[in-house]
Formats: sequence, structure tokens, C-alpha cells
Amino acid sequence: MYLDHAAATPLDPRVLTAMQPYFSELFFNPSAPYAPAIAVRRDYEAAKATIARAIGAKGDELIMTAGATESINLAFRSIGGHSIISSIEHHAVLAAARAGEHSVVAVDARGMVDVQAIKQAITPTTRLVSIALANNELGTIQPLRDIAAVIRTEREARLDRGDLTPIYLHSDASQGVGQLDVKVARLGVDLLTINAGKVYGPKQAGLLWAAPSVRLTPQILGGGQERGLRSGTENVPAVIGFAKAMELADKHRKSEAGRLAKLRDALQDRLLDAFPTAVISGHKRHRLAGHLHISFPGIDAERVLFALESKGVLVATGSACAANKGTRSHVLTAIGLAPKVADGSLRITLGHDTNEEVIERAGGHIIAVIRGEQERMRG
Amino acid sequence: MYLDHAAATPLDPRVLTAMQPYFSELFFNPSAPYAPAIAVRRDYEAAKATIARAIGAKGDELIMTAGATESINLAFRSIGGHSIISSIEHHAVLAAARAGEHSVVAVDARGMVDVQAIKQAITPTTRLVSIALANNELGTIQPLRDIAAVIRTEREARLDRGDLTPIYLHSDASQGVGQLDVKVARLGVDLLTINAGKVYGPKQAGLLWAAPSVRLTPQILGGGQERGLRSGTENVPAVIGFAKAMELADKHRKSEAGRLAKLRDALQDRLLDAFPTAVISGHKRHRLAGHLHISFPGIDAERVLFALESKGVLVATGSACAANKGTRSHVLTAIGLAPKVADGSLRITLGHDTNEEVIERAGGHIIAVIRGEQERMRG
Repeated sequence: MYLDHAAATPLDPRVLTAMQPYFSELFFNPSAPYAPAIAVRRDYEAAKATIARAIGAKGDELIMTAGATESINLAFRSIGGHSIISSIEHHAVLAAARAGEHSVVAVDARGMVDVQAIKQAITPTTRLVSIALANNELGTIQPLRDIAAVIRTEREARLDRGDLTPIYLHSDASQGVGQLDVKVARLGVDLLTINAGKVYGPKQAGLLWAAPSVRLTPQILGGGQERGLRSGTENVPAVIGFAKAMELADKHRKSEAGRLAKLRDALQDRLLDAFPTAVISGHKRHRLAGHLHISFPGIDAERVLFALESKGVLVATGSACAANKGTRSHVLTAIGLAPKVADGSLRITLGHDTNEEVIERAGGHIIAVIRGEQERMRG
Repeated sequence: MYLDHAAATPLDPRVLTAMQPYFSELFFNPSAPYAPAIAVRRDYEAAKATIARAIGAKGDELIMTAGATESINLAFRSIGGHSIISSIEHHAVLAAARAGEHSVVAVDARGMVDVQAIKQAITPTTRLVSIALANNELGTIQPLRDIAAVIRTEREARLDRGDLTPIYLHSDASQGVGQLDVKVARLGVDLLTINAGKVYGPKQAGLLWAAPSVRLTPQILGGGQERGLRSGTENVPAVIGFAKAMELADKHRKSEAGRLAKLRDALQDRLLDAFPTAVISGHKRHRLAGHLHISFPGIDAERVLFALESKGVLVATGSACAANKGTRSHVLTAIGLAPKVADGSLRITLGHDTNEEVIERAGGHIIAVIRGEQERMRG
């Protein structure tokens, strides 16, 4: 009963099947001059076009990377200047922003970014605003279109006064791509990061999309792959797999989001029934369908996690990041959760392999374990 | 009849078999806290230890990257200062060096780096010397140990006069690792780059080894993976595959190098018999076993390549890099090959799937195609 899909998703078997030939008979270096290699190059470009289509972009606007972390670093290092992020961004965004001049805007108790706070944080040297489409711990979906409107207004104001300092909106949509429509024009972003490893695709495959007007600076120099913006022999199998994963996500997005929301709501209702003092975090409506962040005040979530593990239920206590080592989640601190509540938090994230039976059984185990902990503490 | 193993090697089926479980049932994020994820973390660290053993290092001295290009960039950006490279380095080294102050030392007609030239190029601000273990076009194996001795002497001289400016030797051993012993202590390097994709392992998997005394600066910030030096969710399947590939290379190195040298020499002899004016480039003795760089003066190698392709023989005309688009190889210019000779060059590189029959048949096709071209030009 794997309920930690926000940390990693298994490779969809159809994705692995699509990748397989590029490991063996179609292993050629896509830069080699003979026909079989040229065919591999064509397949690679076609895969990029497929991925691009899923976000409403063109294949040659994508820079394929080794994952979201690299994409985010490429975006920040390329744009430079003052940046604005929210207090609940992913570690990669936090770290990339901290490397330069930056401002952090607060979020409300639901984890929603305050659009006005972003507007107020913009300085004449602000060049980048970076807000994840959906938060990986809470599932809260951010008002990117409203943020984009603020940035557009600032851009126009700068142009009106002859100031050519650019200002861009970047979003890491890795957590949202399986459930939300991530068409770049609709979101209003100038740069977009996606990670294949969160959408049933291969790990260490990511992309940075940039609007044609954005000038990027390559961080990895060499053979000039990806229009000179990211050198290194292309990861053909991974990009083929990424394309298949995006295709599948695109096809099943609506039905899957509906299915997961129903399952999640059933689990949420059942847990709230059993524990009326439990606290649900994240936005009630603007939340990823598979996300359930629930806190049991006074309970030690780590103990719960291990007890659940012994029953075959795998959940998270917080963001599954290397940096997350026994320290309290910066996201839960940012939304103002009291330490006693935060320390009793579980992040339960559903995915393709989650069905009614899993939810039924996992729900039973969670209730039993929390009850046991409550009794232990009373007794 | 694939004879371009220097451009890419197919994944060894045993490598793919080793990787497979980590795509599906063992897909967990190695930073997650539950037991199955901790087991994946353990397997990942064990794979790093296996790779490290093959180069005589420790697992935690390796930084796993998305390939040699990233490793090289990490080395150059971390060390900074003036660097020294040879004129026949790979595009990634050329590009990384060009981003800063650097000197280029010449090579002789065999592609051998002049150790004295390196000594003379060292300035008080030189911090990095980067020379590939074996050249990817010629196969020439460089005198790394002698270069290391020069650097050691300089380091000691600096310390003697109280100068704390470090000076390091980095080598990209990607081309040599399948055939040469690449123990770091024996080579005398301070940093070493290896690419799994050249040794029957997965593409976009590489490593940078650095001696404990070398201070690296992370280029990709985030969750703090790889001791904080390279963030991003670990590419578990690729590193597992990399380990298997290194294990296999280590096991078969001696017998395979002998086998390939014999096959290569047979082909070389046959071609020289048929075309006495053909020119073999690269060092006669200090050359990778599977490498044969041969030029047919006056012949158009691109035409030969396509004619051979129609017979099912795949060879290269030069370095199969994205930058290599119809331009003359910088390596062949550097070794002083006349344009007429350089433009008639084939790079034939043998590998695991090359046997006597392949060499026999490919040799016949090469002879027939070159004869045909010679007749066409006469006629």
C-alpha cells in the first residue's frame, strides 16, 4: 500500500516498454552521422515534440535536463538578479534563490501564496519570480495566472518608462503535471520546470521550458546539445520514456484526477470521523486530487510512520528530500502549524496504483495505529 | 557491423537486467524514511562503492552526475583559476576551459601530450591541468603519471615558498575505462571523470571522483544529495547499471583488451596491405586496443561512410559530438594532418560485439568502397 506518490512514482510499464529499444538495438549516439543514429535523433526530437505538445509548447523550446533540480538551477542562474519565491518552495528553489539576492513572500494557513505580497516584493532589480504550481507537501495549487498578471503589469510598466530589465515567472510544475493542465500559455509562465520522475516516467529526466524571449545561459558546456544550452550526449531512453509518460498523463488526467479526489475525500472523511481533532492542511478546493496532509495533534508522526510501515502502509511525514533529516518541515512552519500539530503530520499521496481496496485497508491501519498511539500516551 | 564504439556502446544485457528492478518494484525515493526506501538507499551506496572500488577509491568520494560533460564542468567550475589543457581534448573540456583563463599545450603527430610543455605552461595562478586519459579520436593514451609528477613537483614548490594556491590534475577517463586500469592512485590524478555510456552502461550517468583534499563547489543546488555537491533525486537505476558495467569491465579488461588489439591489428594490417599510402594516426604502442584511426589521402571520408553504411558497416569520420557538424576535427588539425589526409579519415572503434567475422567482412567492404572511390576519382 504505497501512499507516497509525491516522493516518487513507479515507472509505468508502458513507459519502460517504450524506453527498452533505446537501451539495446537503438543505442546509437544521436549525433553520429549514419542512418540508424539519424533515426534515433529523429525519435528523440519527436519525443521532445510530444512532451512540448503536452504543455502547449514547441519541441525546440525545451531544454532536456537531468531533473527538476537541474532545471531550476538553470533558470535561476540564467536569469540572475533579485528573485522572489514563496516560503514553501521546494529545497531546490530555496537553495537556488539563496545563492543570490532574493525575497521570500509568506503564504496563508492553507499554503496559498499572496499575490499582493508578490506585487509588493517586486523591486526595480527583480528579474525572476518562482512559484511552484502545486506544493509538494500540502498539494495546494497556486494562483499562477494571477501572479502572471502582476508580472505582466510590472513588465509593461518597466517598458513604459524605458526600463529594459526583464522580469519572468518560473514555475516548477513537477507535482501538478499528472493532474492539472499545464499549458504554458494558460498558466502565463515564462519558464516551466517538469520532472519525469513524478509522473510515472524515468528518474533524472527533466525539462526546462523557456519562452523564446527568455535568454538562457548554459551551465553545462561542451558538445552543444539542446541548442547549446545544455551539453552532454542526449539521454535518449529517458526522453522517450518522458514523452510516453506525458502522453499517458495527458490522456488520463481528467478521469484520474476525479478518481483520486474521490478516494482521497473518502479517506479524509473517514479519518476526520475517527479523529475529530485532526487537522487537514492545504487548500480545501485548490488542492491536488491525490494529496492528503493530515495532522494528529500530540502524536509522534515518526512513530506512526514506522508502525504503518510494519502493516505495509507507506506514507511520508514531510517532504521526502535529502535535506529533510529529522528537522521540521519548513512548509509546515510557514503555514503556521503549531509544533505539536506539525510533529503529528502525515503526508498521504495517492497515485495510479491506489484503489478503493488500498484506501479501505490503509484507512483501517491508520486509524488503528493512531488509536494505539493515543492510548499509549494516555496510559 | 557496428564499429563506432567510441561514440556510444550498447547497454550490456546484464546491465539492463541489474537496472530493471529499480525502475519498477524498487522505484522508491532513496531519501524516503520507510524500510523499502532505505533498502534502495543501501543498494545505491553499495553500487557507488562498487564503482569506487574499480577506480581504487571510496564510494563517498564519488559525485554521481548526468555524464562526463557535467562532471568536467563541475571540476572546472569548482577549481577555477588558470587551467591547462591539450589541443586534442574533448569538446566539454575545451568549452569548460574556454570559460576561464587557460592555456592550450600542443601534442605531437601521434597525439601525445608533451609533458615538458605542460610544465612550461604552468603559471603561479594555474589551478587545474586537465588531460583525457585516452583521446577519443586517435585512441592515444597519455602519460598521465608523468604529468602527475610535474604537478606534484609544482605543488611542493608552492608549499615550500608558502604559496597555498592548489594545483590539481583532472582526467576524463571515459574512453579508457573499458581497456585500461584506471586506479586513481596509480594514475596520480586528483580528479577523475568517467561516463557509464562509453562502457556498456546507461547514458547520462557519470561520475566525478575527487581526492578528499579537493574542495568542490556544487553547481546544482537543492536537496543536498551527493554530500551536498550535486542535488537532485538520485538516479538509482543508472547508478546500479553503472556499477554492473564497471564490474564487468574490470573483470574482462585484460582479456578483452588483448582480443580487441588482435582484431584491430589484423584489420589495420589488411588495410595497409591494400592501401600502402594509408596513414595510421595515434600512437603505435600507447593506443586503446579497439581504436583504429586511418586516413586515405585524397578520399572523401563522408562518401565512404555512407557507402559503408549501405553495406551495414557503421564507422565514424571524426568525433561524434553535436559540435562536429561537417567541420574538420580539431584533433586532426592539432596533430598536423594535412587537410587532404584529414578529410579522408575514418575512425574505426571495436567493442564487445566485434569478432573475427565482423572484422573480416567489414574489412572487405572498406577495401571495396575505398577502391571504388579511388577508381571514381581517377575516372
